[in-house]
Amino acid sequence: MTEVNLGLYFLSEFVGTALLILLGCGVVANVALAKNKGFGGGFLMVNWGWGLAVFVGVLASAYSGAILNPAVGIGLLVANKIDFSQFAVATGAELLGAIVGAILTWLAYKQHFDEEPDPANKLGVFSTGPAIRSYGWNLVTEVIGTFVLVFAVFAFADYGDIEIGVPGGLGPLSALPVALVVVAIGASLGGPTGYAINPARDLGPRIAHAILPIKGKGSSDWSYSWVPVVGPLVGGVLAALAAPALLNLA
Amino acid sequence: MTEVNLGLYFLSEFVGTALLILLGCGVVANVALAKNKGFGGGFLMVNWGWGLAVFVGVLASAYSGAILNPAVGIGLLVANKIDFSQFAVATGAELLGAIVGAILTWLAYKQHFDEEPDPANKLGVFSTGPAIRSYGWNLVTEVIGTFVLVFAVFAFADYGDIEIGVPGGLGPLSALPVALVVVAIGASLGGPTGYAINPARDLGPRIAHAILPIKGKGSSDWSYSWVPVVGPLVGGVLAALAAPALLNLA
Amino acid sequence: MTEVNLGLYFLSEFVGTALLILLGCGVVANVALAKNKGFGGGFLMVNWGWGLAVFVGVLASAYSGAILNPAVGIGLLVANKIDFSQFAVATGAELLGAIVGAILTWLAYKQHFDEEPDPANKLGVFSTGPAIRSYGWNLVTEVIGTFVLVFAVFAFADYGDIEIGVPGGLGPLSALPVALVVVAIGASLGGPTGYAINPARDLGPRIAHAILPIKGKGSSDWSYSWVPVVGPLVGGVLAALAAPALLNLA
Amino acid sequence: MTEVNLGLYFLSEFVGTALLILLGCGVVANVALAKNKGFGGGFLMVNWGWGLAVFVGVLASAYSGAILNPAVGIGLLVANKIDFSQFAVATGAELLGAIVGAILTWLAYKQHFDEEPDPANKLGVFSTGPAIRSYGWNLVTEVIGTFVLVFAVFAFADYGDIEIGVPGGLGPLSALPVALVVVAIGASLGGPTGYAINPARDLGPRIAHAILPIKGKGSSDWSYSWVPVVGPLVGGVLAALAAPALLNLA
Repeated sequence: MTEVNLGLYFLSEFVGTALLILLGCGVVANVALAKNKGFGGGFLMVNWGWGLAVFVGVLASAYSGAILNPAVGIGLLVANKIDFSQFAVATGAELLGAIVGAILTWLAYKQHFDEEPDPANKLGVFSTGPAIRSYGWNLVTEVIGTFVLVFAVFAFADYGDIEIGVPGGLGPLSALPVALVVVAIGASLGGPTGYAINPARDLGPRIAHAILPIKGKGSSDWSYSWVPVVGPLVGGVLAALAAPALLNLA
Repeated sequence: MTEVNLGLYFLSEFVGTALLILLGCGVVANVALAKNKGFGGGFLMVNWGWGLAVFVGVLASAYSGAILNPAVGIGLLVANKIDFSQFAVATGAELLGAIVGAILTWLAYKQHFDEEPDPANKLGVFSTGPAIRSYGWNLVTEVIGTFVLVFAVFAFADYGDIEIGVPGGLGPLSALPVALVVVAIGASLGGPTGYAINPARDLGPRIAHAILPIKGKGSSDWSYSWVPVVGPLVGGVLAALAAPALLNLA
Repeated sequence: MTEVNLGLYFLSEFVGTALLILLGCGVVANVALAKNKGFGGGFLMVNWGWGLAVFVGVLASAYSGAILNPAVGIGLLVANKIDFSQFAVATGAELLGAIVGAILTWLAYKQHFDEEPDPANKLGVFSTGPAIRSYGWNLVTEVIGTFVLVFAVFAFADYGDIEIGVPGGLGPLSALPVALVVVAIGASLGGPTGYAINPARDLGPRIAHAILPIKGKGSSDWSYSWVPVVGPLVGGVLAALAAPALLNLA
Repeated sequence: MTEVNLGLYFLSEFVGTALLILLGCGVVANVALAKNKGFGGGFLMVNWGWGLAVFVGVLASAYSGAILNPAVGIGLLVANKIDFSQFAVATGAELLGAIVGAILTWLAYKQHFDEEPDPANKLGVFSTGPAIRSYGWNLVTEVIGTFVLVFAVFAFADYGDIEIGVPGGLGPLSALPVALVVVAIGASLGGPTGYAINPARDLGPRIAHAILPIKGKGSSDWSYSWVPVVGPLVGGVLAALAAPALLNLA
């Protein structure tokens, strides 16, 4: 770990997460905001959009091993795969990248935001929200979803040259399995909360929503905002603790 | 085969199957239970959800070669690729893993189960049921579907480093072909019975349905429960018997 | 070519094509016949179903290099990649395999055929038909679609170890690119005629439709049957003639 | 670069782009023109159709490294990966290939064009148009979308043997990542303008629309035509300028 340049590490996580969020929030904008060509395109389209957003994000952050998610980062930290300075730098970069990515989504869909009458639809492009509000159960759903994600990331280590979080640990096909796992989690566990499964993915765009001059915007729903932060972090830690024993990696 | 640690073998099958069922039943919950963000997402979404559930399950059970299905297991047993103790341990682990996976699905979708008025919809998340009830023809459909699955698993042996059921026999891309075969079977042969094609996938969640305190649940439909057990086992045996001759593997 | 065992070659093409047609006609049955769980699943589901049917078919016919289609076969023959005895044996095996595959689809969906009131819907599961009948233009569409398929097959030769029609020429990932090309052709060129792009795929199931005791069946539409035979053969020959020059393979 | 035969280079780009446009415009025709079997198939089907059109196009233009897009070409030129003669030859070939591809789409869907009553739907098969017309914002969307595409192309260089624009730089799996990136951009950024992200993709078919004797056709909307040319070129240049620093490729 000693040879990591933290400046380049930051840059790598920033760029990857910005692309992830630009494309991820983008597919929600396309499906949710009226007059778009993808309007009403369905949840499977959202799942593929987010999964392939991860694909592009991973492609663009090879230097840092494409963590892109503080829940993955905390799991790698708990497992001693990255050190605290890497975790801190990556998390800061991811949050900043997520804000910038969300701003770019807003620019790409500017007119559709302007013409959208429903403030809740606008917020939904940026951040997740529960289908049925209940902080406890929403938290359970986010914990389970993120557990699956981080657990799968640890499982990749059994499969040759795919190592998330390890600079230089990404082979040519690394981006595909991660993307497919995210499609899987979205389709299978995304129903109740919209699968944040990544604190930066939710908090960054929510901050962007709060600060951007979006025409006719409503509340940024801060009362819910801790759920998609705490749930994923808990899920990531649990996965890191469980993985060595459950995957026979010890 | 002598070097297999049956305790780790059990664990590997347990973990892989639990993830498979969590995600597989999860996509049905998302599509079938009201108020979910994926509600009404369509059968292709269900097909991708189950296929990628297999993808994640295989990733997480590399130690045992990711059997995850007693119908695959019995095929490997008939073909002498695993011995009886492996088959027995794997099958037990798969059944237990399927029960645990289904419980996790229920927890992830707890509120949506609580608000769902139709008991049949609740059971449908756990177990398969026929579109047109007729045990004989439902059995035929399950036999054919499972035959394709297990036959394809044998065919992988012709393609380099992909060997299901062989500890250490899984290369980095092993999970993708299996997942795509399951998407194929779901889309193409899943119409009449909902493609159990795996006794553990159907029986485990049905047991979970019977024992869980699901609000307003109805019958667990035990009268149908033997079809998605017997059909897949017969299909798996037939595939194992046919594969050497039909695939020129002898 | 001298070491090919034509008996095993026949078997390989027979098995691969039977699986291809079982799954391919299966997805149409699922989407088109009422009461199926995939009923109304949409054309993209049909495209993925057929593409992944090719995936499974290729997996199961490694011995012969997975031709599975007389239009591909005639292209390989014109290019001197296979000899006439191989072409003749493969074509016979493909036609027989297609008949058997269609019979298996009928068995898997037996009750749904029995309950379907519309004879045209039943035929549509077996064979293709034009959206707007016009033999000349329907032929153009089939020629173009098959040209793309066979041209892509020739293009694979530029990409490492993927060689359709060459025994032992298939590496572990060979099945995926072919499958994706078929998804592409279905989505992009399947609108007017339902993309037979394979004489065996259309003629075999049509023969099965004619001979099976399908309840309430109507005409097998023999007047159209030559289009999805002649069109694909012409497209395959044109692709084989054009490929060396256009792909710089000479 | 000195060993490139510019005649074969032209041919390679011409063939690849013709296939790209035939299939890409084809999926729009299938979804948008009445009576097609894929009519109303949804935006995700369009996204997969275009993405896999790129897959086929890349497969068919290995000789030139499959640029297929003047926005990619100008990026490679700015980065000194190709020289001006290559850029000029490729761009000419791409434009001509796009015209020919669009003519082939028209032939494949001839009857459906003839029966379509709405001229705007006919043009929509050929060229993109904005959901909400505003040249400035439409330009922003095209710049952002193309930036992502060209940036990803540069990122591939970090992943082993995938090098777009480098003759002989394409390994067996090169076509898949590019295709998935295009699916991603379509789903995520295609809502406002229909994602031209390629000047040849838009201008070539628009020229074809203008010159073809399409029954009942309307305007070719030349007033918008500069947006999907200028936007992608700007996006491509920006990506090429940003990539070395942001991807740590320097």
